[in-house]
Amino acid sequence: MTAKVGVIMGSKSDWETMRHACEVLEELGVPYEKKVVSAHRTPDLMFEYAETAVSRGLQVIIAGAGGAAHLPGMVAAKTELPVIGVPVKSAALNGLDSLLSIVQMPAGIPVATVAIGVAGATNAGLLAAQMIGAFEPELRERVRVRREKTKQAVLEAGELE
Amino acid sequence: MTAKVGVIMGSKSDWETMRHACEVLEELGVPYEKKVVSAHRTPDLMFEYAETAVSRGLQVIIAGAGGAAHLPGMVAAKTELPVIGVPVKSAALNGLDSLLSIVQMPAGIPVATVAIGVAGATNAGLLAAQMIGAFEPELRERVRVRREKTKQAVLEAGELE
Amino acid sequence: MTAKVGVIMGSKSDWETMRHACEVLEELGVPYEKKVVSAHRTPDLMFEYAETAVSRGLQVIIAGAGGAAHLPGMVAAKTELPVIGVPVKSAALNGLDSLLSIVQMPAGIPVATVAIGVAGATNAGLLAAQMIGAFEPELRERVRVRREKTKQAVLEAGELE
Amino acid sequence: MTAKVGVIMGSKSDWETMRHACEVLEELGVPYEKKVVSAHRTPDLMFEYAETAVSRGLQVIIAGAGGAAHLPGMVAAKTELPVIGVPVKSAALNGLDSLLSIVQMPAGIPVATVAIGVAGATNAGLLAAQMIGAFEPELRERVRVRREKTKQAVLEAGELE
Amino acid sequence: MTAKVGVIMGSKSDWETMRHACEVLEELGVPYEKKVVSAHRTPDLMFEYAETAVSRGLQVIIAGAGGAAHLPGMVAAKTELPVIGVPVKSAALNGLDSLLSIVQMPAGIPVATVAIGVAGATNAGLLAAQMIGAFEPELRERVRVRREKTKQAVLEAGELE
Amino acid sequence: MTAKVGVIMGSKSDWETMRHACEVLEELGVPYEKKVVSAHRTPDLMFEYAETAVSRGLQVIIAGAGGAAHLPGMVAAKTELPVIGVPVKSAALNGLDSLLSIVQMPAGIPVATVAIGVAGATNAGLLAAQMIGAFEPELRERVRVRREKTKQAVLEAGELE
Amino acid sequence: MTAKVGVIMGSKSDWETMRHACEVLEELGVPYEKKVVSAHRTPDLMFEYAETAVSRGLQVIIAGAGGAAHLPGMVAAKTELPVIGVPVKSAALNGLDSLLSIVQMPAGIPVATVAIGVAGATNAGLLAAQMIGAFEPELRERVRVRREKTKQAVLEAGELE
Amino acid sequence: MTAKVGVIMGSKSDWETMRHACEVLEELGVPYEKKVVSAHRTPDLMFEYAETAVSRGLQVIIAGAGGAAHLPGMVAAKTELPVIGVPVKSAALNGLDSLLSIVQMPAGIPVATVAIGVAGATNAGLLAAQMIGAFEPELRERVRVRREKTKQAVLEAGELE
Repeated sequence: MTAKVGVIMGSKSDWETMRHACEVLEELGVPYEKKVVSAHRTPDLMFEYAETAVSRGLQVIIAGAGGAAHLPGMVAAKTELPVIGVPVKSAALNGLDSLLSIVQMPAGIPVATVAIGVAGATNAGLLAAQMIGAFEPELRERVRVRREKTKQAVLEAGELE
Repeated sequence: MTAKVGVIMGSKSDWETMRHACEVLEELGVPYEKKVVSAHRTPDLMFEYAETAVSRGLQVIIAGAGGAAHLPGMVAAKTELPVIGVPVKSAALNGLDSLLSIVQMPAGIPVATVAIGVAGATNAGLLAAQMIGAFEPELRERVRVRREKTKQAVLEAGELE
Repeated sequence: MTAKVGVIMGSKSDWETMRHACEVLEELGVPYEKKVVSAHRTPDLMFEYAETAVSRGLQVIIAGAGGAAHLPGMVAAKTELPVIGVPVKSAALNGLDSLLSIVQMPAGIPVATVAIGVAGATNAGLLAAQMIGAFEPELRERVRVRREKTKQAVLEAGELE
Repeated sequence: MTAKVGVIMGSKSDWETMRHACEVLEELGVPYEKKVVSAHRTPDLMFEYAETAVSRGLQVIIAGAGGAAHLPGMVAAKTELPVIGVPVKSAALNGLDSLLSIVQMPAGIPVATVAIGVAGATNAGLLAAQMIGAFEPELRERVRVRREKTKQAVLEAGELE
Repeated sequence: MTAKVGVIMGSKSDWETMRHACEVLEELGVPYEKKVVSAHRTPDLMFEYAETAVSRGLQVIIAGAGGAAHLPGMVAAKTELPVIGVPVKSAALNGLDSLLSIVQMPAGIPVATVAIGVAGATNAGLLAAQMIGAFEPELRERVRVRREKTKQAVLEAGELE
Repeated sequence: MTAKVGVIMGSKSDWETMRHACEVLEELGVPYEKKVVSAHRTPDLMFEYAETAVSRGLQVIIAGAGGAAHLPGMVAAKTELPVIGVPVKSAALNGLDSLLSIVQMPAGIPVATVAIGVAGATNAGLLAAQMIGAFEPELRERVRVRREKTKQAVLEAGELE
Repeated sequence: MTAKVGVIMGSKSDWETMRHACEVLEELGVPYEKKVVSAHRTPDLMFEYAETAVSRGLQVIIAGAGGAAHLPGMVAAKTELPVIGVPVKSAALNGLDSLLSIVQMPAGIPVATVAIGVAGATNAGLLAAQMIGAFEPELRERVRVRREKTKQAVLEAGELE
Repeated sequence: MTAKVGVIMGSKSDWETMRHACEVLEELGVPYEKKVVSAHRTPDLMFEYAETAVSRGLQVIIAGAGGAAHLPGMVAAKTELPVIGVPVKSAALNGLDSLLSIVQMPAGIPVATVAIGVAGATNAGLLAAQMIGAFEPELRERVRVRREKTKQAVLEAGELE
């Protein structure tokens, strides 16, 4: 099945975070592909990846990176597809640098930024599903059902007994 | 024409920022509606707005707010549509509080966050267009053409003479 | 005995922090109830909880949450009772995001914010007791006696021998 | 009429901020007193003010200060009444220092902290009214009516035309 | 021998940090006393301590505290002796709150602030010795000799072999 | 009369801030000298200034600087006299960089740091006077009298009428 | 004369900052070229610029950008020449976002980062001259002479009369 | 072989970070020397080191330090060689203090600042090699080859299988 979502990350060590995006996509039945693509170490591969994204059938790109995180913004500069940026937690500044490097894009090239770390990666998967779900009622329904389950979990936690 | 994008903001004073989202949508020919909806002062209206968004034909919601900015996240909690959050610059902390209140959502309910202030509002309009454009080639083409123009502007600025 | 204080929190994992509020209330003989109520996963339950708080006899609500912490502010938007917000320590930003999301409320809807984490939860219990104690001299006296004990503990620590 | 709320501030220059607390109290018919009391320049007066607060009939104290803002916390250390702290915007750090100096109280002595600056001062007045209103239904009703008005203002702002 | 330096701290748990100040004073032969004095839990003791400091022969006071650290500033408000403030590392914000609460004193009441944590406590002991040493050549000489030793240690570390 | 306090600053533009230190010294009758000494542009002059400070009769040095503010710490490294550091407000980061560059000294070489900007400069003058006043009762008395005056000013501000 | 230094910036509005780099290069007689090259709006031009830098005779590249500033890091990824990054002051966060986006590069691709704003741009010019000057004694001498002049200016400011 | 790069650090404990700079230099065949030189504990040695750097044949200096990190800036003030500053991660503030103390240099004396911690130290070695490589094609080629290897590592990480 052709991938609708491309999940890329700046380094292999980001996988521990980014796999949460993939797990959500799998759970919701959204076909995806995943790849290590580094803005700084493989800049040409990054450009090629972004340029061919539409023609390969992708509808959304999820890009995770840490520190001076340039991957989401540079991919966004090379494709008209929506790009979701995941700020990976960094060694010294806990991801504050990753967050600002991703979210503070200049007018013209947006990146849809989510929270730092695992929660953000999980939400990147959900956000991609919601973007596609706005045009595929069955997927939107699966998102709704998933939400219903997390709601039930809260209700059961209930009185904390 | 039925609105595809709903642009809401927490207070009338946010309009100075949020109108930049509307201008982009207009420019790209994306039908939209706009409204003041306050999380804290009109919570029921906010819930109703979010609950009826799908049935009214919206495909994306853009929500701007400042300070303890709860509007984007709470709307996102009440609809399966993708929600874009714009952190409006705040009086004391320059929008850092707005940014963290919007972007740091827990796993389960994503908000697609853009930059603080006017650049973010502009990009919210573009991001909404790109989300829809992933499913409407003509719109994606209009996004591409707009980018081409900003590229030409840079090339002309060129040697700074 | 009817609960006077409602202690709610955004997720079961917040209990490790929020139980310190409950312990203080217990120690001071203030009847309370506790519950997991999530702003993002159970928004309707949250609204219902807030709307019925007065009629159920609550006099104060304590709400703890982390990250983009919307629970205290949204509950405050739906009740005229005073709401105390506890910023739970977050994974990446140590609770700075929780603090700003709770304290920076816009004019119109206040949240009585306390310190990040366990100290804040403990103080939330005390603050609730002091709010009620302003109208119940016996409770105020119990607060005074508790303070006297912590004072004695400091005096005994004394010369550090 | 005996004051129920004491509004104090660290310096005369804080009045520009703190008068917003007084205006709300006036509007809601809550009797109050106001005074400049400095933690650092008049420490003995501060202690005396706090110690006599209960016997003078106060039910809540609102204290505003900027920078290394010690007034709210020190007053809280000397009375069992609830103390609301307003972080006044500071010259160099925009009130972030004021906020942390007020909110990060150690376990044992809470300060009910509100937002930095004018929004916080306004909310301090409202929070005091809500604390008292939890025990005076007429006042709670006046708070509710005031909220209704701000809600109407939002609804009228409506479509931004 | 009469103590020349008074070392106080807000809680017993600060001793792990503040003992480094005492060790330096001991090493340099400066007589000192040490005590737990809490701004919030023993405010009257704090005032009495500060008020009697001159008459008891103290020449400098070192005060350590964490979080909303009010001890150094409040002691400084009650004595004309120089007060050195040590920001103790705090649980959530790593001492940034302690630092700002101590250093950002308003014009009129200075606190001589040193670094966060152990380095700061060590330096508080040295600074006290240097203040007294400006008037006691033998002590200044002992400070000089101690510096000479740390210099030798660096020179020996030398080429890192 | 021989200067007891040396007031230095990294650039002529710091004078607008640092003159407040000089005004306090003048007011309290403490003889002082003032000079522009730059850590980065006149490093040798800086070292010479620090090395000759004791022999020229100085008892305290006040050093103000902004940004990567190295002047106070480097002077402190070259003299056993106590050095007071004033963080001058900087263009981009409002003096947070100046503050951290001055206060976060490693164990071994303390700098007595005061608040950012004008309040800090004023307090640097007072702190120098208090250091000397610990050994000169007449000066300590003048400090006490000055405090009494600022206290009276607060008392007169009183009820804010 | 062939340019040895390439000065590029992300947008025309950065010129107000970046011209200070050019002025220094001019003053020191270092041939340079200048150009607007945007990472996000002209990514291909940026890559081409970086790829041809060596063959066109450049020895150093200076790149200025603000917000999510990706220009310096991406150029650095495409050339083995040393790249100096200038964080331009941004609208909301005063250049803290620019600084972190530029300086926090991952291991493998360095960017030589200077201060935020005008001081940084000036220093970028000087740093480029010093890099080249390490291999051209005449240029190093011109740098030395320029420093001598700024030193004289400080000495003349002297006693502040 | 005469050292071309001087690697210095403020304390022996910085070696764990700074050895990464040395490893890169070794790998690339750039002769270097290494030494502990403390700005605060051995200021005269530091000045001597900087003053003799050119005559000893150094072409670049790498200086690492933490906290109030004055070593890179002070060395830069005493030599016309380019100085690379490495902000070492600090105990309380994770190197944010180190970063600002190094990068925010005033106009006139630049420091080429790299990332906080190990990534920064590694990049300092690479940056030094690139500076020299701009004038030594063989070294630039070795840098290029090293990059090619890291690129291959990314390509092999590929699909994350």
